[in-house]
Amino acid sequence: MELTVAKIAQLLKGVIVGKGDTKINQLSKIQEGEPGSVTFLANPKYENYIYTTKASAVIVKKGFTPLKPVEATLIFVEDPYTSFSLLLEEYYKIISSRKKGVEEPAYLGKNTITGQNIYRGAFSYVGDNVKIGNDVKIFPHVYIGDNVYIGDQTIIYSGVKIYKDCVVGNHCVIHAGTVIGSEGFGFAPQADKGYRKVPQLGNVILEDRVEIGANTAIDCATLGSTIIRAGVKIDNLVQVAHNVEIGKNTAIAAQSGISGSSKIGPSCILAGQTGVVGHVEIGEATTIAAQSGITKSFKKGGEVLLGSPGFEKKKYLTCYALFKKLPELAEKIKNLEKITKFVT
Amino acid sequence: MELTVAKIAQLLKGVIVGKGDTKINQLSKIQEGEPGSVTFLANPKYENYIYTTKASAVIVKKGFTPLKPVEATLIFVEDPYTSFSLLLEEYYKIISSRKKGVEEPAYLGKNTITGQNIYRGAFSYVGDNVKIGNDVKIFPHVYIGDNVYIGDQTIIYSGVKIYKDCVVGNHCVIHAGTVIGSEGFGFAPQADKGYRKVPQLGNVILEDRVEIGANTAIDCATLGSTIIRAGVKIDNLVQVAHNVEIGKNTAIAAQSGISGSSKIGPSCILAGQTGVVGHVEIGEATTIAAQSGITKSFKKGGEVLLGSPGFEKKKYLTCYALFKKLPELAEKIKNLEKITKFVT
Amino acid sequence: MELTVAKIAQLLKGVIVGKGDTKINQLSKIQEGEPGSVTFLANPKYENYIYTTKASAVIVKKGFTPLKPVEATLIFVEDPYTSFSLLLEEYYKIISSRKKGVEEPAYLGKNTITGQNIYRGAFSYVGDNVKIGNDVKIFPHVYIGDNVYIGDQTIIYSGVKIYKDCVVGNHCVIHAGTVIGSEGFGFAPQADKGYRKVPQLGNVILEDRVEIGANTAIDCATLGSTIIRAGVKIDNLVQVAHNVEIGKNTAIAAQSGISGSSKIGPSCILAGQTGVVGHVEIGEATTIAAQSGITKSFKKGGEVLLGSPGFEKKKYLTCYALFKKLPELAEKIKNLEKITKFVT
Repeated sequence: MELTVAKIAQLLKGVIVGKGDTKINQLSKIQEGEPGSVTFLANPKYENYIYTTKASAVIVKKGFTPLKPVEATLIFVEDPYTSFSLLLEEYYKIISSRKKGVEEPAYLGKNTITGQNIYRGAFSYVGDNVKIGNDVKIFPHVYIGDNVYIGDQTIIYSGVKIYKDCVVGNHCVIHAGTVIGSEGFGFAPQADKGYRKVPQLGNVILEDRVEIGANTAIDCATLGSTIIRAGVKIDNLVQVAHNVEIGKNTAIAAQSGISGSSKIGPSCILAGQTGVVGHVEIGEATTIAAQSGITKSFKKGGEVLLGSPGFEKKKYLTCYALFKKLPELAEKIKNLEKITKFVT
Repeated sequence: MELTVAKIAQLLKGVIVGKGDTKINQLSKIQEGEPGSVTFLANPKYENYIYTTKASAVIVKKGFTPLKPVEATLIFVEDPYTSFSLLLEEYYKIISSRKKGVEEPAYLGKNTITGQNIYRGAFSYVGDNVKIGNDVKIFPHVYIGDNVYIGDQTIIYSGVKIYKDCVVGNHCVIHAGTVIGSEGFGFAPQADKGYRKVPQLGNVILEDRVEIGANTAIDCATLGSTIIRAGVKIDNLVQVAHNVEIGKNTAIAAQSGISGSSKIGPSCILAGQTGVVGHVEIGEATTIAAQSGITKSFKKGGEVLLGSPGFEKKKYLTCYALFKKLPELAEKIKNLEKITKFVT
Repeated sequence: MELTVAKIAQLLKGVIVGKGDTKINQLSKIQEGEPGSVTFLANPKYENYIYTTKASAVIVKKGFTPLKPVEATLIFVEDPYTSFSLLLEEYYKIISSRKKGVEEPAYLGKNTITGQNIYRGAFSYVGDNVKIGNDVKIFPHVYIGDNVYIGDQTIIYSGVKIYKDCVVGNHCVIHAGTVIGSEGFGFAPQADKGYRKVPQLGNVILEDRVEIGANTAIDCATLGSTIIRAGVKIDNLVQVAHNVEIGKNTAIAAQSGISGSSKIGPSCILAGQTGVVGHVEIGEATTIAAQSGITKSFKKGGEVLLGSPGFEKKKYLTCYALFKKLPELAEKIKNLEKITKFVT
């Protein structure tokens, strides 16, 4: 970011008190501000930091009156938090758009079409018959198999592996090390106690605006497609098995796993380290609490589930509170037995 | 796949009604069939789809009589499901064998011997003193360290990392992003509260027909070998620690973890997200249910375990059913206390 | 290792009985010793193996008198176990230091400074404005983003991905496939049920002597830094979310996950598959038992926690023992109800 304080003030429609020509190359928290950074003061309990911060500029609310001298340049705006968020997004756009062109060596297969304004990093591999949209960024060490489709504006970070025939929509982000389209865990037990492989011939479809974290694995379908609907957000180290469908705008936190052929509805939240068995259906806007294991369908939607096997969260917490009181309950039973023995 | 309907019928020993010269390049489900695909009708409840499918050909049972006009070419066979499975396997073989030769740049170390008919993708790395068998496929971005041995017919997908000295058998499949032979978590606590590293000098041995999913990690032994026996199937994101031994034909589902020096018997099934502590032994054909945590040896074999710590599954489910009734049980105890108080 | 028995004896200040000029190229367990390997006998219950081992040399305690003929050369030392550990460490140093220089093609960005005696493997990628210290090893397929700092003596194994702006200290080890600095799971829910991305602009700091296993993911901070303090050891497939801080010398076993902004104290132990929710604080030297889920702060330190939600381990085990007796407790309640019904 090669911005000046003046340019930031202009962007935020703010008023400067101090030096407008200071160059800014970083955004920081007020308690960690370094020279060359811009920060903000929204919560009054952080006010003390404004008198000691080394940040070059601080975004403050119109009407703010310092109680002591301030070294930093001040930018007065209507709402410092919103302004800073806006600045974050602008800054993010600037740094995200830096990478352009092709770094050699990069491998490009036959009959492959690449759009305008794309970045292909060194050691990236794009197979045959691939179609890549405009403004796509393919970082170093990315592998894109044959016949893959990548939509516009999508960012694929270093080391992502996308198997043949998969489809990635527009405005998707896939973080480093994630694998899309690996063969599912399909093995038919045989009489000799060994397994026979069930060929996995389908693909994975990521619709638009899907974001996936690092080192996650999404298996291809046996036939047809494993489908991740538009707007889905998946965290790091998540397992999505073959033929799963994840509904629109569902969010799945780290280290969760969905077994084969299960269908998760739209707008669900799966907290961290949850598991869902195969061939079940989870209704719209269901929340699955952390570390829960879902072993049957919950189609109703809107439920909050906890436990392994999971059931209604409130009920689970009541039971768990009593689980913690089991020593007392056992003691009470013992006493009751003494009393009844005495009585009878 | 450049097959015609006639060629497929010949392969399946089936009889064609319709056009034999139609080209087939995909296999599909009957409800999703596209032109150029072949599908099958085995379950009568899907019969309706045969009248609307856009698939070019449908495999049907001998004796099947359509109730309405069918556009697709029909292939009559004894058992449509078995025939389709056979076709899946044939198709899988064809598409799996496409990749051949060496794509440059690919790195090959000194004193390394590679067999006949192998594929080495661009940006693949094969170190010194490596021995690679016949018909092996090494996809782009694979790393094979020094002194590694890879058997015949083995497929190593993009981004797999195999550390030095490891041994991979014949007919193995390793999916993208998996790491074989990383150093185990061996650290000796010191008086100063820090840790001293225990050098990890062993390797990993995968015997024949081992299949491993994506982004799994298998650590090398401290000394000697971490051993994965013939026919073992391991899913995505699984952790196998140093000096573990997994018995023949055992299957381990996604996100499970086996701690150091534990020994899992043959023909076991570990469902998803299970954990096994270190230095224990699990007997032949033991099943560990999803999310269970095994904290001691279960050597008997044939048991089904559930819970964390895990024990006999049936007993666990009985206890868990009562856990869900704890509010009622607590109420009953309260009532009993009232009554006994009244009586005594 | 091109060592002779004589050289090893010299290193260990031991006395040889047998052939000093035998070449040694491996370390082994006594029960698995092969010609060319050296092993040790510390525990008397393994004495039988010394008469049958094929190892070329065995390290034994001064005063040891064989009861039968021994073929291997013996090296007499004060403490065979300590001597063998020393030998392990020496051997590890020798094999670890083999890789040197630059294997082409390797990518080096602009304004990047690399120290002395470093290894950059083929297909490794080092971005712009990077600073790399002395004696650093960067294995094939490693990605190092722009503005990264790597300290002296650090080893980065194949396929590690380090995002821009991250800092890695001295004497760190990062195993294959691990991702450092990916964007955290920050999405603000919107009125239309979709999510708006919260830009992630911070970095990750690994202090000195941090070791990280394979396929782990550590997200960058939203602003500021995700911090892994000196001496921390992290195992395979671990998730560390944005803005987390892990205290000095804490050890985290495989498949554990720490959610955003949580602070783990120094000298803690997190066993395998544990989870910690976001925005909590765990005190110094706390132990979290395997598969536990920590849902609130435990600031006291020194506690041992178990369960999901986790609490004091001893208490948990008492409750769990009673959970296993719930069928009996329920039976007792039933009997009590019968008796009281009879009495009243």
